[in-house]
Amino acid sequence: MENEFKLIEKLLASASRMTKGGGDYIKVPPGDDACLLSGLRHPVITTDTHRENIHFSFDWQTPEEIGRKAVSVTLSDLAASYAKPVSLFINLGIPSPFSEKTAEELYKGIGGGLAEYDCTLGGGNISGSDLLSLDLFAIGEGSADLFPLRSAAKPGDGLYCTGPLGLARAGLELLKKGDTDFQRLGNRFKFPKARFDAAKVLVDHGVRCVIDISDGLKGDALHLAEASNVTIELSIDRKDIDSDLTAFCRKYGLKPEEVAIAGGEDYELLFSCSQDVYGKLKKALPDAYPVGKCLPFTGIHILAPASKLSSFQHGKTNF
Amino acid sequence: MENEFKLIEKLLASASRMTKGGGDYIKVPPGDDACLLSGLRHPVITTDTHRENIHFSFDWQTPEEIGRKAVSVTLSDLAASYAKPVSLFINLGIPSPFSEKTAEELYKGIGGGLAEYDCTLGGGNISGSDLLSLDLFAIGEGSADLFPLRSAAKPGDGLYCTGPLGLARAGLELLKKGDTDFQRLGNRFKFPKARFDAAKVLVDHGVRCVIDISDGLKGDALHLAEASNVTIELSIDRKDIDSDLTAFCRKYGLKPEEVAIAGGEDYELLFSCSQDVYGKLKKALPDAYPVGKCLPFTGIHILAPASKLSSFQHGKTNF
Repeated sequence: MENEFKLIEKLLASASRMTKGGGDYIKVPPGDDACLLSGLRHPVITTDTHRENIHFSFDWQTPEEIGRKAVSVTLSDLAASYAKPVSLFINLGIPSPFSEKTAEELYKGIGGGLAEYDCTLGGGNISGSDLLSLDLFAIGEGSADLFPLRSAAKPGDGLYCTGPLGLARAGLELLKKGDTDFQRLGNRFKFPKARFDAAKVLVDHGVRCVIDISDGLKGDALHLAEASNVTIELSIDRKDIDSDLTAFCRKYGLKPEEVAIAGGEDYELLFSCSQDVYGKLKKALPDAYPVGKCLPFTGIHILAPASKLSSFQHGKTNF
Repeated sequence: MENEFKLIEKLLASASRMTKGGGDYIKVPPGDDACLLSGLRHPVITTDTHRENIHFSFDWQTPEEIGRKAVSVTLSDLAASYAKPVSLFINLGIPSPFSEKTAEELYKGIGGGLAEYDCTLGGGNISGSDLLSLDLFAIGEGSADLFPLRSAAKPGDGLYCTGPLGLARAGLELLKKGDTDFQRLGNRFKFPKARFDAAKVLVDHGVRCVIDISDGLKGDALHLAEASNVTIELSIDRKDIDSDLTAFCRKYGLKPEEVAIAGGEDYELLFSCSQDVYGKLKKALPDAYPVGKCLPFTGIHILAPASKLSSFQHGKTNF
C-alpha cells in the first residue's frame, strides 16, 4: 500500500505542476499542512463524490475517463455559480492492489480535466479503500456582479436549457448494453463539459436563476421550483430533441421527450429569465431552447408529461 | 438509502444552522450548487479523510466521538498554518443500513466540533459506501503576517513541541486491549484538540516553521528535516515525559521515550526557532518543551535513539 501511495503522490504532484494556468493563485503549493491561495473577493466552494460502482464503473469507463469526468462534473457546479475555477483538491481512496498503469491513467485524466478548465491542483490526500473513490473540493472566484440562485425563478419567467438533454442517460444505457451504435451518446455520458462558456453569456445578460442538470431536467427543475416557490410546467418541443437521441429511442421503443425530461448527467445549465432576455441571449447561445415556464405556485411544483421513467438516480445528494 | 440520505441531509442542515459563530463568512449557505463566502485575504485550505477500520473503529469509538475527532483533526492543519477556521465541507459515505441513532450521534459530534472551533458547515454531499467515510475540506483565513512552512527550519534552531507526546498512541493500544486503566490516554486518542491557542503564541513570536504531529514526532520531524534540508537530532528529556505515559509503559514493558518519539495522532504542534525566541514564548506556553535540535545536513535527516517502534501508520498521505 505504501508504494501505491508514493506512486500516486508522485503522479499527482506532477499533475499539480502541469497545471500552471491558475498557478498565479497558489502562493504556497501542496506539501505543507495546507495550501495558501491568493486573496479571493468572492470565494465559491463546491464538493463532489465519485465512487466505483455507484457513480462510475471500470466495466465501461477507463481510469483516464473516470478521472477526467470527476473533474468536469465538480467544476460544473462552479460554472452554474458563475465562478472561475481556482483550485481543486482531491481525496483518493484506492483499493489494493492498484496497478501503476491504472494510477497513471487516472492521473492523466485528472490532469487533462484540470488543463481543460485552467484549474490548479491544490492538494488532497490518499488513503486505502475497498473500492476506488474520489472526493473533490473545488474553489473558484465568483462573479463580482451576481451569484445565481435556485430561488430566483419568478412566475412569468421562461425556463431554458443550454444544450441537448437525455443524451448522457441514453449513452449510459448503450454502454451497459455494450451497444456500440450512437457513440456520440456514450461520449456525452463519459465526457461531460462544464459549461463555463454558456455561464459567461448568462451572467452577461443578468440571468439570476441557474442550476446545472445532474439529476435530470425533472429532478433539477423540482429543485428550482421548490426553492423559488413556483410551479414549473415542463415541455420540450420535438424540434429541440437531439436526432441521435430520437434514433436511439426508435431502436429501443422509448419516447424521446421522456428520456430528455428524466435523463441526468448532461451537465447543461438550466436557467429561468424573461422571454425578452432569452431573445437577446439566444444570439450568443444558439443551442439554447425553452423547456418550460414558471407559473404562480398551484400546490404542485412540477407539471410534466406523464412518464414511466424516474429521474436519474446517481446515488448522492448535496446539502 | 433515500431515507437515510434525507435524514442526514436534515441533520447536517441543522448542524449548519447551529454553527452561527463563523456565520458572517457565509453569504449564500448550503443548498445551491455551491456556497458563496465573504472575501478572504489569505485563503488557507486543507483536506482530510477518515475511513472506518482505517482511521477509526466503532469497536472503540462512538459515532459522536468519530464525528468530533474528524472535525478537530482537519482543523488542526489550519492551526498549524496560522489560519482561523472559516468553513468546513463534509462528504459522507454511508453504509446501508445506517441507523437514525448513529446518524444523529455522528451529526452531534460534527456539530460539537464545529461549535468548539467557531467554524461553519459550508456544505458537502452524501453517497452510499461499503463502510462509513468522512472526507473533510476546511477553508480558513490565514495570518496577514506569516504562513508557517515546513521548509523554514535552520541549522542552530531548537525543535520544540507544544504538549505531551505518545499519549494518543498509548491510548489507542489501551482501547484495542479493552484496558480501562489510564482513561486520560484513551481520551487523548479520542478527543484531540486543534491547538489554535498555541498557534496564536507562535505567530505572535514570529515562529516560521510549524507542523502538527499526526504521524508521530519521528515521522513529522522527518517531513521538516527533508523540506528544510537539515539534520534533526531528536531527544526528549525524561522530565518532559507525561507521568501517565510512564505508568502505562511500566505496565506494558515499553520505553516511554520510544513511545513519545514514535507515537502519532497527538496533534500537538512541532516547531523550530532560536533558543532566544523559545525562551520568550515559553512564558505564554508553559507546556512547551524541547524535543531536539536542527543541525547542518549530514546526509541523514533524523538522528534518534534506537527504537523498535515504527512511526505511526494511519493509512493516509497528503500531497
